[in-house]
Amino acid sequence: MKDYISTEIHDITKDILADYDKKRHIDKLDVFNQPDTKVIYELIQELVRVAYPGFTKDKSYRIYDIRNNLSMVIEDIAFRLNKQIAIALRYGEHPDEEKLEATRLEAQKITLAFLRRIPEIREYLATDVEAVFDGDPAAESADEIIFAYPGLYAITIFRYAHVLYELGVPVIPRIMTELAHSKTGIDINPGATIGKYFMIDHGTGIVIGETTEIGEHVKVYQGVTLGALSTSGGRKLFNKKRHPTIEDNVTIYSGASILGGDTVIGKGAVIGGNVFLTKSIAPGTKVSVKNQELRYNQGKREVQEIEAYPDSAWFYVI
Amino acid sequence: MKDYISTEIHDITKDILADYDKKRHIDKLDVFNQPDTKVIYELIQELVRVAYPGFTKDKSYRIYDIRNNLSMVIEDIAFRLNKQIAIALRYGEHPDEEKLEATRLEAQKITLAFLRRIPEIREYLATDVEAVFDGDPAAESADEIIFAYPGLYAITIFRYAHVLYELGVPVIPRIMTELAHSKTGIDINPGATIGKYFMIDHGTGIVIGETTEIGEHVKVYQGVTLGALSTSGGRKLFNKKRHPTIEDNVTIYSGASILGGDTVIGKGAVIGGNVFLTKSIAPGTKVSVKNQELRYNQGKREVQEIEAYPDSAWFYVI
Amino acid sequence: MKDYISTEIHDITKDILADYDKKRHIDKLDVFNQPDTKVIYELIQELVRVAYPGFTKDKSYRIYDIRNNLSMVIEDIAFRLNKQIAIALRYGEHPDEEKLEATRLEAQKITLAFLRRIPEIREYLATDVEAVFDGDPAAESADEIIFAYPGLYAITIFRYAHVLYELGVPVIPRIMTELAHSKTGIDINPGATIGKYFMIDHGTGIVIGETTEIGEHVKVYQGVTLGALSTSGGRKLFNKKRHPTIEDNVTIYSGASILGGDTVIGKGAVIGGNVFLTKSIAPGTKVSVKNQELRYNQGKREVQEIEAYPDSAWFYVI
Repeated sequence: MKDYISTEIHDITKDILADYDKKRHIDKLDVFNQPDTKVIYELIQELVRVAYPGFTKDKSYRIYDIRNNLSMVIEDIAFRLNKQIAIALRYGEHPDEEKLEATRLEAQKITLAFLRRIPEIREYLATDVEAVFDGDPAAESADEIIFAYPGLYAITIFRYAHVLYELGVPVIPRIMTELAHSKTGIDINPGATIGKYFMIDHGTGIVIGETTEIGEHVKVYQGVTLGALSTSGGRKLFNKKRHPTIEDNVTIYSGASILGGDTVIGKGAVIGGNVFLTKSIAPGTKVSVKNQELRYNQGKREVQEIEAYPDSAWFYVI
Repeated sequence: MKDYISTEIHDITKDILADYDKKRHIDKLDVFNQPDTKVIYELIQELVRVAYPGFTKDKSYRIYDIRNNLSMVIEDIAFRLNKQIAIALRYGEHPDEEKLEATRLEAQKITLAFLRRIPEIREYLATDVEAVFDGDPAAESADEIIFAYPGLYAITIFRYAHVLYELGVPVIPRIMTELAHSKTGIDINPGATIGKYFMIDHGTGIVIGETTEIGEHVKVYQGVTLGALSTSGGRKLFNKKRHPTIEDNVTIYSGASILGGDTVIGKGAVIGGNVFLTKSIAPGTKVSVKNQELRYNQGKREVQEIEAYPDSAWFYVI
Repeated sequence: MKDYISTEIHDITKDILADYDKKRHIDKLDVFNQPDTKVIYELIQELVRVAYPGFTKDKSYRIYDIRNNLSMVIEDIAFRLNKQIAIALRYGEHPDEEKLEATRLEAQKITLAFLRRIPEIREYLATDVEAVFDGDPAAESADEIIFAYPGLYAITIFRYAHVLYELGVPVIPRIMTELAHSKTGIDINPGATIGKYFMIDHGTGIVIGETTEIGEHVKVYQGVTLGALSTSGGRKLFNKKRHPTIEDNVTIYSGASILGGDTVIGKGAVIGGNVFLTKSIAPGTKVSVKNQELRYNQGKREVQEIEAYPDSAWFYVI
């Protein structure tokens, strides 16, 4: 049989390799020390083990004392995260040996500072588990939440990534939260600050922007956007406060959008489903879409009607 | 080079291990027999093979007769699912030997009851494939649907998980549907009941709550919520009917929300895109958002206009 | 201990195997040459490597010259894609040896045509990276976009899949875009045509239908649907233009739906968040939802108010 491929593959390969010489952003042949997305993903799995010991299994070892096994996991995180941070700190540069040495020490300090904060991160996570269990009538047990709830998974990764973000690590925090985004449909920028007892239910389609500030005991449902609002947009806004502030005990129901860096949702406010807000709301206020005009069509007869949301809609829980 | 990590890792590890002694939900060091999410995921892949034989490959064996291979897959499901069910039935307890023995027999009976229902599950799945093929003009073939459609994938996992839920298995059904949720953005609680010929298109952002009841020949598009509505919320609602009833031949277009345990959408009703409903709809009714006031701004001139949905919007198909 | 499973598994297996004889779509026991979803997924990873060399690592080899390694990756793509295309072209048929031979040659020609277009695909991808970097103030660097942004990932897979779609390959393009859909929540049908400098931000919940046409410099945010609108629906619409046309420099904000094969969004138009459109928009027009009536409830006092969107809402950026 004729084999066209073997006769033409040489030229095709040559053309593609030549295409790599155009010096665009996408033509980085000389980058040999990239942050490794696969390693970062494995680190996430280890960090989840450390957060919730006893909920996942290590198949590689026969475990008599889980403490020995977890010590080993923590050492492995230290070793591999340190390496990834060192790469990320100099990514895309071609540093000399002296600079590299300084970077290595910096990476070590960051890694240690990160590890020291794990008990604090776990303190937050314990409150998050509690918040979900109290708020979701479908939850059978706290265990089920830890095993299966995408909201808790996304928050867990976010809390770790946020500490790395605070410690000035480039690229890696975003890779971590985007891995969580990919698994859950929940997109929390590692720059956001989120207080204790944070609950996400269902979650798919949630976007929480980089400069969002969220207090304690806040509940957020699927499809909520905490986003930016601007007349100019684009790169000029780099590093500006562009996303809203959500105070303690606020609940935001599904599909609501709250936009803008000056928008403050006051303590205890309840934002109803599908509400679109670009201005601040006083504490204790319940905001909902007033009504929706619907058409009802049964055979020939067509009725137009105001569908007022019932009062209970202030509090609807999915 | 200085190695800060090796000098400090011991203390850090000690602090994290000490943090595990706080006896919170997240400090379960003594749980050594957890349901294994990875095994459950592999079981899902085997169950998909059994549902759609001939659509996936088993690489480990040279297959002459696919029936021999499928028999082996079914045995493997029996063996491993049985083990996971036994763990789930006593998860978090410390049962004595007598209780464990009773649990093992219970797990066997559940496993067998589950396996016996596979032909019935496949009968439902055959109607689901048919419904998608009839309803989606973009589908090239029924094969393409089985290979690639996330909606069918989510329904397949749901139908298996629902049977385990009916048989009283804790935790595992939810782990199964959350794995499907993670892959598809479609969140169907294993407690929902769904009739034959169920079609989901696109799917991302769909939420179907635990006590939802869905009839036959129902179509649901992306972003639809079949949710709960309540003035109190939280754990008090555990085990109450909180989600709507959708009768036969209903179509629910993208972004619609239907909420509340007393809400019944009657036979043959069509619910338009973005409609928000908290009350029942009579059979045969077509409901749509009446109109949306839009601003049109061209240079200096600004026009405000009612954008009435065209009649065809009753039926828009994505 | 009693072992119920071993005594009953034989009969259960027999019943399931008997169920495979019902000759429904889902009973394809005799298909022994299926497109292999796992191989197609590995091909996607290789194609991403070829698109962005230097951003991912090949662990299997010590790499001195990345060019040698990439040549090898390209050859591997040629070999394995060719095989998958040959299978897909005759999937479900039982061709004789002559027909099989013709199919093999056809697959080779398609594979080569595909590979020859890689530099062109990369030219488009370079513009997409640029568009995201210019448009997203949260992006630290172009590298971060390539490493972490789900929007770019989905577009990358789409651009490859679209070329295979144009070359007439069945099933495989859809499997590719559904894998991207699963990872990102972004559902782009491989049949859509999309110009240079395409930017997706956040992405989850985006649906872009099969016959959509998109110009250059178009920006699309999360939750946007570019869909079909019809009074009949179903299989009759196979192969008709059912989805909108989006001209150059259009921006479509989150949650907007644009439906219908005759709907044209003119050059430079801006479509605001949550706008629902089923008719064409003149070039340069800014369309937004005029206002939303909200209820504000503080203790006993209830205020109803028109919440007019501020002017800046024309341009809100998430």
